[in-house]
Amino acid sequence: MGERLLVIGGDAGGMAAASGARRARPDLEIVVFEKGVRTSYAACGIPFHVGGEVPDVESLVARSPETFRTRQDIDVRLRHEAVAIDLDARTVQARDLENDVTVTLGFDLLMYGTGARPVRPDWPGVDLPHVHFAHTLADAGRLATVAAETRGRPVAVVGGGYIGIEIAEAFVQRGAEVTLFAKASQLLTNLDADMAALVGAAAERVGVDVRLDEGVTGIEPGRVVTQKGTYPAEVVVLGMGVMPNGELAAASGLATGVRGSVVVDDHQQAAAGVYSAGDCCQSIHRVTGRPTWIALGTVANKQARVAGTNLGGGDATFPGVLGTAITKLCDTEIARTGLTEAEAEASGLDAVATVAEASTRAHYFPGNGPITVKLVHERDSRRLLGGQIVGAPGAGKRIDTIATALWAGLTVDDLVNLDLAYAPPFSPVWDPVNSAARQAR
Amino acid sequence: MGERLLVIGGDAGGMAAASGARRARPDLEIVVFEKGVRTSYAACGIPFHVGGEVPDVESLVARSPETFRTRQDIDVRLRHEAVAIDLDARTVQARDLENDVTVTLGFDLLMYGTGARPVRPDWPGVDLPHVHFAHTLADAGRLATVAAETRGRPVAVVGGGYIGIEIAEAFVQRGAEVTLFAKASQLLTNLDADMAALVGAAAERVGVDVRLDEGVTGIEPGRVVTQKGTYPAEVVVLGMGVMPNGELAAASGLATGVRGSVVVDDHQQAAAGVYSAGDCCQSIHRVTGRPTWIALGTVANKQARVAGTNLGGGDATFPGVLGTAITKLCDTEIARTGLTEAEAEASGLDAVATVAEASTRAHYFPGNGPITVKLVHERDSRRLLGGQIVGAPGAGKRIDTIATALWAGLTVDDLVNLDLAYAPPFSPVWDPVNSAARQAR
Repeated sequence: MGERLLVIGGDAGGMAAASGARRARPDLEIVVFEKGVRTSYAACGIPFHVGGEVPDVESLVARSPETFRTRQDIDVRLRHEAVAIDLDARTVQARDLENDVTVTLGFDLLMYGTGARPVRPDWPGVDLPHVHFAHTLADAGRLATVAAETRGRPVAVVGGGYIGIEIAEAFVQRGAEVTLFAKASQLLTNLDADMAALVGAAAERVGVDVRLDEGVTGIEPGRVVTQKGTYPAEVVVLGMGVMPNGELAAASGLATGVRGSVVVDDHQQAAAGVYSAGDCCQSIHRVTGRPTWIALGTVANKQARVAGTNLGGGDATFPGVLGTAITKLCDTEIARTGLTEAEAEASGLDAVATVAEASTRAHYFPGNGPITVKLVHERDSRRLLGGQIVGAPGAGKRIDTIATALWAGLTVDDLVNLDLAYAPPFSPVWDPVNSAARQAR
Repeated sequence: MGERLLVIGGDAGGMAAASGARRARPDLEIVVFEKGVRTSYAACGIPFHVGGEVPDVESLVARSPETFRTRQDIDVRLRHEAVAIDLDARTVQARDLENDVTVTLGFDLLMYGTGARPVRPDWPGVDLPHVHFAHTLADAGRLATVAAETRGRPVAVVGGGYIGIEIAEAFVQRGAEVTLFAKASQLLTNLDADMAALVGAAAERVGVDVRLDEGVTGIEPGRVVTQKGTYPAEVVVLGMGVMPNGELAAASGLATGVRGSVVVDDHQQAAAGVYSAGDCCQSIHRVTGRPTWIALGTVANKQARVAGTNLGGGDATFPGVLGTAITKLCDTEIARTGLTEAEAEASGLDAVATVAEASTRAHYFPGNGPITVKLVHERDSRRLLGGQIVGAPGAGKRIDTIATALWAGLTVDDLVNLDLAYAPPFSPVWDPVNSAARQAR
């Protein structure tokens, strides 16, 4: 009898790890319990299907269960929801939702990749048929169908994070009258308030009615009720963030940390022979050195590659995260990495922030637009702590320069003379990142 | 009597240094000898004026002589060509071309910013009226006028470097029938041959007839003569590179180095009280640690800032260059930084190269296109040595990630898990730079 790897969760974290283990160990038996009907889909693409830019929802599926079975000999069992892990007996119990029976399977190696789930408020009316999430491909399909009919009609988006912003954009593209409600006093709470204000202004410019400091309290047919009033809403989309599916791990005795995510070491190992990766597990923030929880596809895939290598008998380590992220709202690009000024201060660091206004291209080049770059550094050491960018097309991916500098532990002064690429269609002669660093002098 | 700073050359190197010195020292008398009729213009923008994308040639002027005079009290003397420097007597002789007299002026501080000049071959026919350069704004104006009339007509571009590529693009946009002649066996000799081949293919795709290994030997009215044949050409543009204007410095006794460029220390100082910056002076390559000569606007401006600070009594150092550069040919973006595989080998380094094919955006996202990333690293230390990118819109500025990693001395393995920004409109979940680094494993 060979060894068996049992994988809980068939999305990015679980399946990328399973694939990695398979490459290294053709002998391993690999079984996956996935409670849904899909594997490895691009949840990040959902808003763009809703908005109509990505017309085919099936294109969001990176690899089907059938492909995993036939090409990689991975036994994917759909509609199987893991309900208990016994770490001593080395077994997992799963509910076969199709046949309504419980199955128990032993494992030698376990991969815990349960991901995250959307926050679901307990408001009255949250189960009404016009209330939607944007988390699964089933959500995506339903929402796209609904969105196509919303031209000129009132739509409420609840939540000011990435999903809220992207869903608002999707409905703007469908011609809906979008109101966005955020409980916080700014959009995108992982930006500083000054940068988030630029995003708010961009949202208003494209016609989104942004209502900050306005928590929703309930939903009624055709409308949304908030702390401040009642608003017509034929469609309501909830994008209030996600939380890690760490409960099953915690119940089995695995340690959990930030927001209940699974604690792993730098090999993505949660316990002997038990690995985890993706939205369900904790990371180490490279700037603070402290645990953090960041649910992003990039992090999930990178962690899963590490877990897969180790499950396959190799030796890989995951070096931590910076919390780099990017999104857009029509023609406004938004990106961040490392710590915001507020986060740095909350971490007890003596932080200095500088903000530079620049342009994305040479001033005379067509398509040139504004870009605002905020850099945060530590006062005495001058070590870079983070960066934020809001600007015109071409602005956002410049965050990678700052992320790479952060990764390497550069100071803000190192960025002044950094030899970045210039030609008039791409940049002013001083790249905006250089300019922001000059300002920090 | 206060001190006098004398500046030779009124373009980026000279004027940015003059401005920096002025900010620090309002008391300084600053005189500039500029042999032309312009100050601080964006030579890099010329091809885009020729192609019609930048209709107003005056928009390429960053700051006029009049502005320098009135806003910064900098005495710009146009049509004054410096002809001799006496470092012992602390004087410069200049020819006043307007009045055909020679003037001599003393200095306490000297800034040498003479820039570079285009290579001018001694072929028969090079002075014919249909032969053009693309170096000065006067060239730009003439060439744009000519270009506007070239729809369907044969145009020859001589030279396969950045200027050649960009001028070829300009005439393609004007609808001309463009033939590009390069003496080398590839375009862009500062790329490796495999990456340059992608550029050649892109040029052919947009209709440029690329003739490699085919040096021009002469020009006749209405045609170009090469080693291999005779071709019709109603317009001939020479873009055969530039060379540093180091002769005046050398004649005065200043040391010159690579290609005759002025040798400076890390303060941009060429001799006591004598500074230099820009296309006329040498740099240190951060990867090899050796002298190099790179004529680029970014480098010129950064060096000039350092020179200006020091001329003003401050203490700034220039940390060297990576040779980062970017250009485009219609929808193909081309960028490079550090050493190519060939350069690394020529430097005696044991280099390994890996090439990854990826895509600029999520595979399902509209506007997604191909990107090829080549990384070069040192075999044993695994230190990154350089990178090259050719790809669809959005590809090129990713070179900045590689440049920042090079700047910080990261290994190619550091790039695997580097936390770069991902969202479907911007990148696949593994950024192409991550993917290239994975391949190097």
